Amino acid sequence: MLISGNHYQSIKYVPRSQDGYGQHVIILDQRCLPFQVKFEKLYSSEDVIQAISEMHLRGAPLIGITAAFGVVFACSEAIKSQEASVIKEQAKKIISARPTAVNTENLINYIMQKISKVDTLEKKEKTALHLAKKLIEEDIEACRMIGKHGLDIIRTISETKAGPVNILTHCNAGWLACVDYGTATSPIYLANKEGIKIHVWVDETRPRNQGSRLTVWELTENGINNTLITDNAGGYLMQKGMVDLVLVGSDRTTITGNVANKIGTYLKALAAKDNNIPFWVALPGTTFDNDSDLKPEKIKIEERSSNEVSHVEGLIDNQIRSVLISCDKVVCSNPSFDITPSRLVTGLITERGLCKASKQSILKLFPEKITQKYDNEK
Amino acid sequence: MLISGNHYQSIKYVPRSQDGYGQHVIILDQRCLPFQVKFEKLYSSEDVIQAISEMHLRGAPLIGITAAFGVVFACSEAIKSQEASVIKEQAKKIISARPTAVNTENLINYIMQKISKVDTLEKKEKTALHLAKKLIEEDIEACRMIGKHGLDIIRTISETKAGPVNILTHCNAGWLACVDYGTATSPIYLANKEGIKIHVWVDETRPRNQGSRLTVWELTENGINNTLITDNAGGYLMQKGMVDLVLVGSDRTTITGNVANKIGTYLKALAAKDNNIPFWVALPGTTFDNDSDLKPEKIKIEERSSNEVSHVEGLIDNQIRSVLISCDKVVCSNPSFDITPSRLVTGLITERGLCKASKQSILKLFPEKITQKYDNEK
Repeated sequence: MLISGNHYQSIKYVPRSQDGYGQHVIILDQRCLPFQVKFEKLYSSEDVIQAISEMHLRGAPLIGITAAFGVVFACSEAIKSQEASVIKEQAKKIISARPTAVNTENLINYIMQKISKVDTLEKKEKTALHLAKKLIEEDIEACRMIGKHGLDIIRTISETKAGPVNILTHCNAGWLACVDYGTATSPIYLANKEGIKIHVWVDETRPRNQGSRLTVWELTENGINNTLITDNAGGYLMQKGMVDLVLVGSDRTTITGNVANKIGTYLKALAAKDNNIPFWVALPGTTFDNDSDLKPEKIKIEERSSNEVSHVEGLIDNQIRSVLISCDKVVCSNPSFDITPSRLVTGLITERGLCKASKQSILKLFPEKITQKYDNEK
Repeated sequence: MLISGNHYQSIKYVPRSQDGYGQHVIILDQRCLPFQVKFEKLYSSEDVIQAISEMHLRGAPLIGITAAFGVVFACSEAIKSQEASVIKEQAKKIISARPTAVNTENLINYIMQKISKVDTLEKKEKTALHLAKKLIEEDIEACRMIGKHGLDIIRTISETKAGPVNILTHCNAGWLACVDYGTATSPIYLANKEGIKIHVWVDETRPRNQGSRLTVWELTENGINNTLITDNAGGYLMQKGMVDLVLVGSDRTTITGNVANKIGTYLKALAAKDNNIPFWVALPGTTFDNDSDLKPEKIKIEERSSNEVSHVEGLIDNQIRSVLISCDKVVCSNPSFDITPSRLVTGLITERGLCKASKQSILKLFPEKITQKYDNEK
């Protein structure tokens, strides 16, 4: 997508050059957004570990892909040191950089399995690189297809009304979380390209403000009209008829259609239902959780740092700093996701098309999900 | 209620002393909370206007009472200058200090009407003072009675479970918004006094963070266990069975039981309904809006400054300052209230007892509301 009119991806692989300049990936240091656009080059598996653990980048798809390049770099380091054990050691450290990102663990384990089947370190590196580059291509294509299918929903709404289609979104399910297009944002970008008038209500998304910091920024850079609101305001806007469609991403969706997404999503789904507004979830097939018996109340939710609730980070005196917004010794709770039950979800937008948030409908599009178990890959 | 173990009211009248020290009211400068406890003395009608317009204090009941003392001071100023016109001029300015606070306008008009019936300026001052002091007493008594009736609800829940009663509240409907006890907090303080174990989930309440700044502070100062959460988290906590009761205040409630309250209240009411959790609204009878035909979607909602959404205020380097949390030129929308339809409200806690959020039930407790019209008092 665009930054200052130029096209970028959230991660880009650069091969080693003839003059010995090492292979690397270029990422955006998302901690600085929207205040500063800062690119960063990661050359080593340690660079990757640091970038993931210190959240230079976020979003499950992007973390997974970056982690995969971490394995590539680990192979390269093994060649240099002629110590094959480096690969396994670094892979372990990459996984534990963000321990809650299950998809990363699955992905790394998958790559490790594949490279265990080739003999030389050089072949291992080549195999890892091939897989990592493929992940980039697959992610872009999945997001593009999500956009294509989601576009139909937006187009249909636009044909029934005069003004812009008002879309409410929560958190950042944008290209910054993926490689390009994004998930929830992809239909928006494609609709805009087609000339459909769009306006997006962006939930601030406390505590980390991915909405105010990332979504507002990426929509604005790509010419999409948007308005920042507090997380409290969405229900009111729906009551007033100012929202035509709610469009969010998902971190994990059960095969029965229950959607785990950023904390607060459930509240917007309730308001959408109460006001008869369509609530769609955009997600790649990789996001489906195969354990079809999983009840929403049983999904384990990450409890993050208290500090994120007691403080808010922003720009002051040209520096990114945090202000305390409560008493010094305040006790905080910080669950990071909630579960939107399938009964509140109008439907899912996947790279293979639209489906209902039901086991039957999901398995019709993704029949391989019946038997496939990530757990078996470990 | 208590601050550092000592009892205070949010406003206190001090008569002029023998040695010529002028009459005044003592208020808490709430802009500094919770970082600094700063009392402020208001001596003149201009002091009152400034305190209201610059939000040294907030909360409809407290604003109304402070405004009433502004009229007292205006009478005193009229005596000094021997210019009767001062009273009317200043009353007008007091009303426009927070133009959206309708109850203040009604209150001032009521006092102006009363003092127009006595002849000398001295008698006018005496009448205004009598009414203002009576407002304080009435507010304390109403809040105390709300607490007494609400206590029954909490006690009943506590009898059905082992651990503490978990109460979720939004914004600040505490003693800081009234004179003492508060509305939504009053049953909590009384239950705690009775030895019932209580734990309160406090919604941060963006954009102005009355929850994190005021409610956390006043609950903590009064020994009530509490946990600060983002506005996004309440639905999740309800899904997990961690909320027994939602208890909020109201800025305005229609005689048919539709509740206007701080933006975001509606979302919590939806989640409470979805999880079969009682949702109670604590309010004094003065909060009822007599226009019984008013549809929720027709209540005019105050749109506040964009700056409150794009920035967050807090403590940094021992100063209260604001950080920018989005792009420099971000467009924001900032509606300050939403409407919770009566169908989502379990019931109302008033100074006269509990009732359903229905016209029939409300009028049974407040039969005088059938004919009384605030508009007629203008």
